[in-house]
Amino acid sequence: MSKIRVGIVGYGNLGKGTELALRQTPDMELACVFTRRDPSALEILTADVPVYAMDDIEAHKNDVDVLILCGGSATDLPVQGPKLAEMFNTIDSFDTHAKIPEYFEAMDAAAKKGGNVSIISVGWDPGMFSINRLYGSCILPEGETYTFWGKGVSQGHSDAIRRIDGVADARQYTIPIDEAVEAVRSGSNPQLTTRQKHLRECFVVAKEGADKAKIENEIKTMPNYFADYDTVVHFISAEELQRDHSGLPHGGFVIRSGKTGLNKETNHIVEYSLKLGSNPEFTSSILVAYARAAVKLSREGVCGAKSVFDIAPAYLSPKSPAELRAEML
Amino acid sequence: MSKIRVGIVGYGNLGKGTELALRQTPDMELACVFTRRDPSALEILTADVPVYAMDDIEAHKNDVDVLILCGGSATDLPVQGPKLAEMFNTIDSFDTHAKIPEYFEAMDAAAKKGGNVSIISVGWDPGMFSINRLYGSCILPEGETYTFWGKGVSQGHSDAIRRIDGVADARQYTIPIDEAVEAVRSGSNPQLTTRQKHLRECFVVAKEGADKAKIENEIKTMPNYFADYDTVVHFISAEELQRDHSGLPHGGFVIRSGKTGLNKETNHIVEYSLKLGSNPEFTSSILVAYARAAVKLSREGVCGAKSVFDIAPAYLSPKSPAELRAEML
Repeated sequence: MSKIRVGIVGYGNLGKGTELALRQTPDMELACVFTRRDPSALEILTADVPVYAMDDIEAHKNDVDVLILCGGSATDLPVQGPKLAEMFNTIDSFDTHAKIPEYFEAMDAAAKKGGNVSIISVGWDPGMFSINRLYGSCILPEGETYTFWGKGVSQGHSDAIRRIDGVADARQYTIPIDEAVEAVRSGSNPQLTTRQKHLRECFVVAKEGADKAKIENEIKTMPNYFADYDTVVHFISAEELQRDHSGLPHGGFVIRSGKTGLNKETNHIVEYSLKLGSNPEFTSSILVAYARAAVKLSREGVCGAKSVFDIAPAYLSPKSPAELRAEML
Repeated sequence: MSKIRVGIVGYGNLGKGTELALRQTPDMELACVFTRRDPSALEILTADVPVYAMDDIEAHKNDVDVLILCGGSATDLPVQGPKLAEMFNTIDSFDTHAKIPEYFEAMDAAAKKGGNVSIISVGWDPGMFSINRLYGSCILPEGETYTFWGKGVSQGHSDAIRRIDGVADARQYTIPIDEAVEAVRSGSNPQLTTRQKHLRECFVVAKEGADKAKIENEIKTMPNYFADYDTVVHFISAEELQRDHSGLPHGGFVIRSGKTGLNKETNHIVEYSLKLGSNPEFTSSILVAYARAAVKLSREGVCGAKSVFDIAPAYLSPKSPAELRAEML
């Protein structure tokens, strides 16, 4: 069997992570990268792999078995996704939870029109965390599911701080609160407020002469992003930010706490946890595994949009079901 | 849609757990129990549900949508499984790892002959742990997977002690060794021997006048079961065993420690952990969720044997894929 040819759409953190992840797969290869920038100005890591302009993507329909869409959920994917799903098998990490049903419908119609498979909302949340929420609730129907994020960098919250007047740069960490996590692990099924679950810690570089008290107040009172949380703000230098906070670590837990037994007297705790050195590199690694699944499904004649819930685990592997049963069951 | 009618084969710990788990599902119901004992002598928890003799099972083909086989892997399932798979959709927890390929082939042939779906080796290991080993290795292809079991009661090891001359009763706990777990969680990818991973702790009731030193020596040197481990033996009274060790708690972890990045410089740790108040009740809850999946697949016209690797997560849920996307993705 020839290698699965993967195209990357968008060469930001996720696109670069996908390029790296493909170097770790025996059965897949990077075929090309598509960019909205000037292709001749874009240098990628992999020698001899062409970079094409997004506008020319249709001409490369036959060069690629699956596209990994590395754009953002706010503006890129809602426009790009359905257009590309009509031409290619696709994988994306669409993560605007509230708009998933609407996005799914658009992708499903486009993929069916083109006879392709599109797996949407792939990553760790939505993605692996979602799968664990689902397994947990199916196995232990009477119980509570808790999701904690962090400790890790939230790029959305970091961006929100950067938009404040007087801020030169910023990095925000989402931190699960130990007491809440321990209460959940104890099986007590606590009701937890937003403030009880996570703390927000911000490292801010202020512009020269900026009013730090005013910046701190604007952060702490920002609706949706910070107002519902206990927020800690540290002002540091640009050098300190670069030295101590340049990585993109992340992680978190999904915990299902459920009860069984004649009188619901038996407690069970199922916990899935991630400690990630790099959020985009891990997310890309998941995208690549699901890209393999999309191509396998497409080769079986399946078409339409799918979520991670619809994909049997065996499809993610380069091994056959018989090998998996013998080696991993 | 009418409720899924479930038949239980074998009314031991797992059969009882299955009966309890079915009380927690909105869309499934216990239809009947099959036993090799005298059916009139078997009292079950659920009122008005019939108990039939195993020998009459064929007569009840149309009373049941799926059978949950609650027999053991050593002698029950290899004989029962293929016979029943020809007549019914089935779920089992076949857990003799080395014989899974052979058992799968027998079940696949029988299920295909009867036009049924048989999902084999369902539970937490094999089962949920296997799924996590698979997801981990697909997402992080360069890395190591570690499985730890416990702290929990191993029924096989407890039975092995009970067979020693002079032993009245016994309970054995498998205990993961903290240093090994922490070394794995650190991302150092250690090579661990059997002895470094788990400790075995035994609580033994000796018969009156038995030679305790001899019993302890026989336990500690028993090949396969204990010789490769550090084993601690405590002699206690029958009352203490009953009071302190009558439950069947269990649990464990699957940890995937993998690396990404240009020079494999980024560490990621994925951990799935279980803390189970009752091993048979949790296992039964998994069997019931997969029984739902078997019936859904069968209604779609699928037939043959499957493992948990072949079942998309959405099939385990009573909710539709659209509901799942809206609520849980």
